[in-house]
Amino acid sequence: MYGISIREPGGPEVLEWTEQPDPEPGSGEVVLDVVAAGVNRADVMQRQGNYPPPEGASQLPGLECSGRVSAVGPGVSGWDVGDQACALLAGGGYAEKVVVPAAQLLPIPEGVSLTDAGGLVEVGCTIWSNVVLLGGLRSGQTFLVHGGSGGIGTHAIQVGKALGATVLATAGSEERLQFCRDLGADHAIDYHGDFVEEVKRATDGHGADVILDHIGARNLDANLDALALDGNLRIIGLMGGAKGEINLAKLLMRRVSVGATSLRAREVGGPNGKGPIVAAVRTDLWPLVESGRVRPIVHERIPVQEATRAHELMDAGGVVGKLLLVVGG
Amino acid sequence: MYGISIREPGGPEVLEWTEQPDPEPGSGEVVLDVVAAGVNRADVMQRQGNYPPPEGASQLPGLECSGRVSAVGPGVSGWDVGDQACALLAGGGYAEKVVVPAAQLLPIPEGVSLTDAGGLVEVGCTIWSNVVLLGGLRSGQTFLVHGGSGGIGTHAIQVGKALGATVLATAGSEERLQFCRDLGADHAIDYHGDFVEEVKRATDGHGADVILDHIGARNLDANLDALALDGNLRIIGLMGGAKGEINLAKLLMRRVSVGATSLRAREVGGPNGKGPIVAAVRTDLWPLVESGRVRPIVHERIPVQEATRAHELMDAGGVVGKLLLVVGG
Repeated sequence: MYGISIREPGGPEVLEWTEQPDPEPGSGEVVLDVVAAGVNRADVMQRQGNYPPPEGASQLPGLECSGRVSAVGPGVSGWDVGDQACALLAGGGYAEKVVVPAAQLLPIPEGVSLTDAGGLVEVGCTIWSNVVLLGGLRSGQTFLVHGGSGGIGTHAIQVGKALGATVLATAGSEERLQFCRDLGADHAIDYHGDFVEEVKRATDGHGADVILDHIGARNLDANLDALALDGNLRIIGLMGGAKGEINLAKLLMRRVSVGATSLRAREVGGPNGKGPIVAAVRTDLWPLVESGRVRPIVHERIPVQEATRAHELMDAGGVVGKLLLVVGG
Repeated sequence: MYGISIREPGGPEVLEWTEQPDPEPGSGEVVLDVVAAGVNRADVMQRQGNYPPPEGASQLPGLECSGRVSAVGPGVSGWDVGDQACALLAGGGYAEKVVVPAAQLLPIPEGVSLTDAGGLVEVGCTIWSNVVLLGGLRSGQTFLVHGGSGGIGTHAIQVGKALGATVLATAGSEERLQFCRDLGADHAIDYHGDFVEEVKRATDGHGADVILDHIGARNLDANLDALALDGNLRIIGLMGGAKGEINLAKLLMRRVSVGATSLRAREVGGPNGKGPIVAAVRTDLWPLVESGRVRPIVHERIPVQEATRAHELMDAGGVVGKLLLVVGG
């Protein structure tokens, strides 16, 4: 088979369409013939040499895909050759074939094309695990989404609305702010201004019960100020740095929590593994997708051989929703 | 009535037994004739002028007590004059009488004396809300208790063991380390050494799933290193400072959360109020007390008029378990 390999750490040009060994399914695994793979910020970090794949994972980038089952390993039940599926991957999605534990497979939600489902699983599992399972967001609460127009943000806004939350989203241009509003955000906030003040104003001083942040240190103190009493700050990226000062008195007085996670390094099974998250997504998020309340937002579908161009778009910023790499015809 | 008032912020000598207005029960409240009041670190901070009572609360110190119901306000059901009870207070426990919302009353657990129950509620609610409700400690996990020989620590060790956790406790002298072991701690760690290394060694590298900390900034980075994957650091005090550097990459890579709370400023009702915590303590902790698996550990029972001496003991350090102020004969 062919797949996109990373020649060496560097810019988008290091991505190359090269011949790779065909994957074989081990126990509990299936092989998918990939139809589409989602592009994530983590792929860019991996290309730059800053996010090495976990032990045992494919060296090729790609944390999610959709496709058809082409081989089934021993011990797998519920999946047969020819089934359509989408999957959470530890790597290897930018390829014609990928091997994946069956616990990380999901059916294609009704109403979503096989192609567009390729960009739905990583974002779905990330949001559901952080915002709902760990952040505890529930109806009637206020949810602040940083980077509301990105692949994660566009999904998060919709999930927040579908759960019955008031959703506030930050973005960096009027066009993207409008996109957040169109997706259902109750308030769109230009992050070049003082977002804490805007959050307080929009919530009559209450603040945000749950904040989803991908900036890290640069936003930390302001996020603490923007949290409501008993609020939860969930960090899923460190684009604004990892190290910063924290004032624990703010946590204590406001009874708030700060947590961070990444999905990729989780094991397959166990109470904190990928399996339980995928299962919760299937049970609780997929119905929201099938009802149309949470739609995949696709910026562009790009042939996988043009992965370099996709990463150039990621590097340039301004991608609204997800980029998909489409494999085959 | 008489109660202990704080003449001015200062040392133990500012505590004075003075005449105070008799409290009247408002709607949903009862008056308790106090039998015993627990002494907490927060009382010391209040005496020093560093922890003002929340709006509307008594200016007298005392966050918990036991006693007998002597008056019942309108809208209270389930409590009658003469009933024995213990209570979580927003203040005012160092007195002959105190007014308290009925939602913050608990029955005296079977097998515990009315006096000793006066030191059980604040610590019980603090541990149960942080370690179980927010920290999610469960059977089979590892629980690290800092300050294992104090009022909070002695209770936390027992709760951890009763829940089926492996309990590690830190303390500062061989005598106190032995006390932790006697209470059931699986490993007692001298905090003058490198507790991270000791935790890793004692858990075969796993780390602590839940850490209960009252130090704050000075322990922050080491606590992050001592946490297991998906672990939870719960901070309930800032004796080692509030401000420090945090490396969010440690949170992200280890998928851990840091949260802090205080109990006193919580409202009575609502999902994050004192009421639901008291209710959970009654349902889930009280049976552990009644079965003898969690016992009140009392360092000394001191007449309330000698509150100054009690605070001198607190200031000197080395109190093992709780100090109780006993009211009346």
